Amino acid sequence: MEPWRTSIVDSRDGHIRIRGYDVPSLMTGRTFTDTIFLLHQGRLPNDTERALLDAILTGVADHGSGAPSCATARLALSGNRQSVSSAVAAGILAVGDDHGGAGSGCMEMIAEGLARAKADSISLDETAQRLTTEARGAGRRLAGFGHRVHTTDPRTGILFEMARQGGVAGDGVAFVEAMERAIATIVKPLPINIDGALAAVLHDMGFTPVFGRLVFIIGRVAGLTAEVAEELAREKPMRIKIPVEYDGVAPRVAD
Amino acid sequence: MEPWRTSIVDSRDGHIRIRGYDVPSLMTGRTFTDTIFLLHQGRLPNDTERALLDAILTGVADHGSGAPSCATARLALSGNRQSVSSAVAAGILAVGDDHGGAGSGCMEMIAEGLARAKADSISLDETAQRLTTEARGAGRRLAGFGHRVHTTDPRTGILFEMARQGGVAGDGVAFVEAMERAIATIVKPLPINIDGALAAVLHDMGFTPVFGRLVFIIGRVAGLTAEVAEELAREKPMRIKIPVEYDGVAPRVAD
Amino acid sequence: MEPWRTSIVDSRDGHIRIRGYDVPSLMTGRTFTDTIFLLHQGRLPNDTERALLDAILTGVADHGSGAPSCATARLALSGNRQSVSSAVAAGILAVGDDHGGAGSGCMEMIAEGLARAKADSISLDETAQRLTTEARGAGRRLAGFGHRVHTTDPRTGILFEMARQGGVAGDGVAFVEAMERAIATIVKPLPINIDGALAAVLHDMGFTPVFGRLVFIIGRVAGLTAEVAEELAREKPMRIKIPVEYDGVAPRVAD
Amino acid sequence: MEPWRTSIVDSRDGHIRIRGYDVPSLMTGRTFTDTIFLLHQGRLPNDTERALLDAILTGVADHGSGAPSCATARLALSGNRQSVSSAVAAGILAVGDDHGGAGSGCMEMIAEGLARAKADSISLDETAQRLTTEARGAGRRLAGFGHRVHTTDPRTGILFEMARQGGVAGDGVAFVEAMERAIATIVKPLPINIDGALAAVLHDMGFTPVFGRLVFIIGRVAGLTAEVAEELAREKPMRIKIPVEYDGVAPRVAD
Repeated sequence: MEPWRTSIVDSRDGHIRIRGYDVPSLMTGRTFTDTIFLLHQGRLPNDTERALLDAILTGVADHGSGAPSCATARLALSGNRQSVSSAVAAGILAVGDDHGGAGSGCMEMIAEGLARAKADSISLDETAQRLTTEARGAGRRLAGFGHRVHTTDPRTGILFEMARQGGVAGDGVAFVEAMERAIATIVKPLPINIDGALAAVLHDMGFTPVFGRLVFIIGRVAGLTAEVAEELAREKPMRIKIPVEYDGVAPRVAD
Repeated sequence: MEPWRTSIVDSRDGHIRIRGYDVPSLMTGRTFTDTIFLLHQGRLPNDTERALLDAILTGVADHGSGAPSCATARLALSGNRQSVSSAVAAGILAVGDDHGGAGSGCMEMIAEGLARAKADSISLDETAQRLTTEARGAGRRLAGFGHRVHTTDPRTGILFEMARQGGVAGDGVAFVEAMERAIATIVKPLPINIDGALAAVLHDMGFTPVFGRLVFIIGRVAGLTAEVAEELAREKPMRIKIPVEYDGVAPRVAD
Repeated sequence: MEPWRTSIVDSRDGHIRIRGYDVPSLMTGRTFTDTIFLLHQGRLPNDTERALLDAILTGVADHGSGAPSCATARLALSGNRQSVSSAVAAGILAVGDDHGGAGSGCMEMIAEGLARAKADSISLDETAQRLTTEARGAGRRLAGFGHRVHTTDPRTGILFEMARQGGVAGDGVAFVEAMERAIATIVKPLPINIDGALAAVLHDMGFTPVFGRLVFIIGRVAGLTAEVAEELAREKPMRIKIPVEYDGVAPRVAD
Repeated sequence: MEPWRTSIVDSRDGHIRIRGYDVPSLMTGRTFTDTIFLLHQGRLPNDTERALLDAILTGVADHGSGAPSCATARLALSGNRQSVSSAVAAGILAVGDDHGGAGSGCMEMIAEGLARAKADSISLDETAQRLTTEARGAGRRLAGFGHRVHTTDPRTGILFEMARQGGVAGDGVAFVEAMERAIATIVKPLPINIDGALAAVLHDMGFTPVFGRLVFIIGRVAGLTAEVAEELAREKPMRIKIPVEYDGVAPRVAD
């Protein structure tokens, strides 16, 4: 039987190498975020790319115990306190189009828009207007725009500023901004939210749309593990209690 | 009905704060590893703590597609290519006592050993000898020692050196080294492996044993997402092919 | 906060009732398959409906350890032998469009075909020819037809015979048979396989397409639990061994 | 590489046989519950064994949306409505010692008690008294006894009556009844609940303790699939609503 082939990890001689780099060498002077980038791109990131991926992973790590992923993880543990891996896995199973899926949806739209602009030899603004008009006609929501609370999303400014300063911003950022203008004209002003922002910069760093969903999972697992550890430490088995009340430290500022 | 209480995420005013810190502020100048540390400890790490956690997460990220977690994730995707979250979750479900569980097992042993040394007012070496003798008598394996290939594990030296240089090394490292001496005398020389090393430094950074398992999950999800992306890109549905053959880049050195 | 509403289980007075029937009363003189039907339809089945659902569940229960669902469940257990529920869940996560999804796919086609025949006032044969021609043009496979080994699938005859004898066969069976004729004429002779057969009779019993996938899961869990129990009893931890070799009893006949 | 060996399914000639029986033959005149019994025991059940397994599976199928398994499945779907298999899997992940685990716990106690009675040549009543006294001293709960609402559990009477009438009742039933007497004398009167009852009769049918957990999963998947189908049909994405309110049909009686 034919084996399956992989280009990710090489452990033929007992040394474990990720994409050719010895793991001990990656453990010194490199960060976990470098390893994530390397695993998915086959090369190490530059400083801007690392900072952007760090910011994105932190941005999606945890939005509170009321999100389906966190609530699912904690309820699973409530019946099955012997297995934290079961609870984290259950939380990931709540990730789908409706929760954590907007980033990859927006990356697909960027790829489609850029391909169309090129094929039809039209400007990004013209392309964005066509996509917006079509989506409006079909009653489709455009992933990556709008925010329940804010009229601008502060996280978007952070990512775009980093991407511009570091020379990473390209067609992805340009197209998402063209979409923002088109939506404001044709529908109503809607800010680029964190999903739209991360989609644009991930595109410009060379990631494919599926990574938009995978990066959400990688980041969210950090939050799920903390939720699960808290559930184990603070709650009793077999409880079903929703909603959630925050009782932690007050807002503070990092040094 | 009483709500559940959490001290992790506060989103009462539409701003999302992790342990009191506004997420946008964590996205600038802080890393994903800082966020992981913060989520679990309620405080930001110092430089040594960050470097140690980075090294540990990279150390467990991926050991190749032949490990149960990676093989499980890829086979799940083979039948269900529509859902990358299902495949990553399936991979996590292969994490248990036999795969990824040695770190938390060793952290429990460290906690037990240090408590016993204190309660019985005996030295760490004396305690380690007693634990080793008991384990040997009961035919129990001691989690964190021994390696299939190496007589010393290079990853252990890296973690202990970092922990010593940064003033993090404490009772955890001391006790695991006492165990290594006791095992060499009573059984046979067995190196402290990556699980024993990460258990010692996580203990010395103030993590509880359950984090030994959770840190493996956080790190391994990075590898699982890459395996799943490769499966989607390179393989056909409904395949069952094991073993695995590496066909990626040759060994190389990071700049 | 508004509660969620359910019409399935009522346990308000400490008695548990499924769709209005007291569970102890269902435990005497009724079968598990009656309960499955009741849970999904809100009424108890007649003898033919029960026999058809029994036959379908047995038909999908287990096709061998080489299927993605079974292989995934066994490999997950190989790393995590402490949790049989994790292993069964991992097996279910391998169920998707490519594995176990043809039944619901075919039920959707039946629903679409019947709606079209009615809307366009054309015969089932005419509708089937149009669908087949369109699928062929688009290079789409038609779910429910063709078999790797057999030129007729014996399980199809069993289900259709039962459905006809018991007066359950209706538009669903008629349309799938019209499709078989259309495919034979336009493409090449392809037998109605188990997925096409169960789709037709489930449609004629009033189930919606999503049940085509759920019935596969219910039946397959029977097989997965047996695979997992065997893995626990016969194999060692951390093994990755594929393919599979049968070493059980020789073919035999039930009394 | 050595293959894995299985005695469950044989598909070497394209025909699928479960434990030697051709699947089409099992589809006629046999029930799904026969197939479940066959998969786990390697033989077909007699009428009493089939009726007992049917009653047990119905007894655990669904206790309402407030149980961790059901709540977990529905919340997972709330974020990920594209994947019913993810939701069912998430529900199974909530099954553990605290939810669905009492049956296997009680089966282990039965096995231990019977082994001890034999080894020490003491009566079942004497053994039961010792186990009860020990559990009380250690503050351990005895799985299988006590009910939140009822002073006798009607489901226990049903199972024991069936087992006695059909000649299946043996040491398992006898030992659980001895435990009930011992607990009443030493602690306080606690009825044998459904978990204790199913543990006793499964033991007497020759199942091992792990099946106590697997049978709960098989039965509960029937309920989870119905909960998931209702969630999809009645609820909107991204909702977190607990508790649950029943709004279905009034209590009724099967003909």
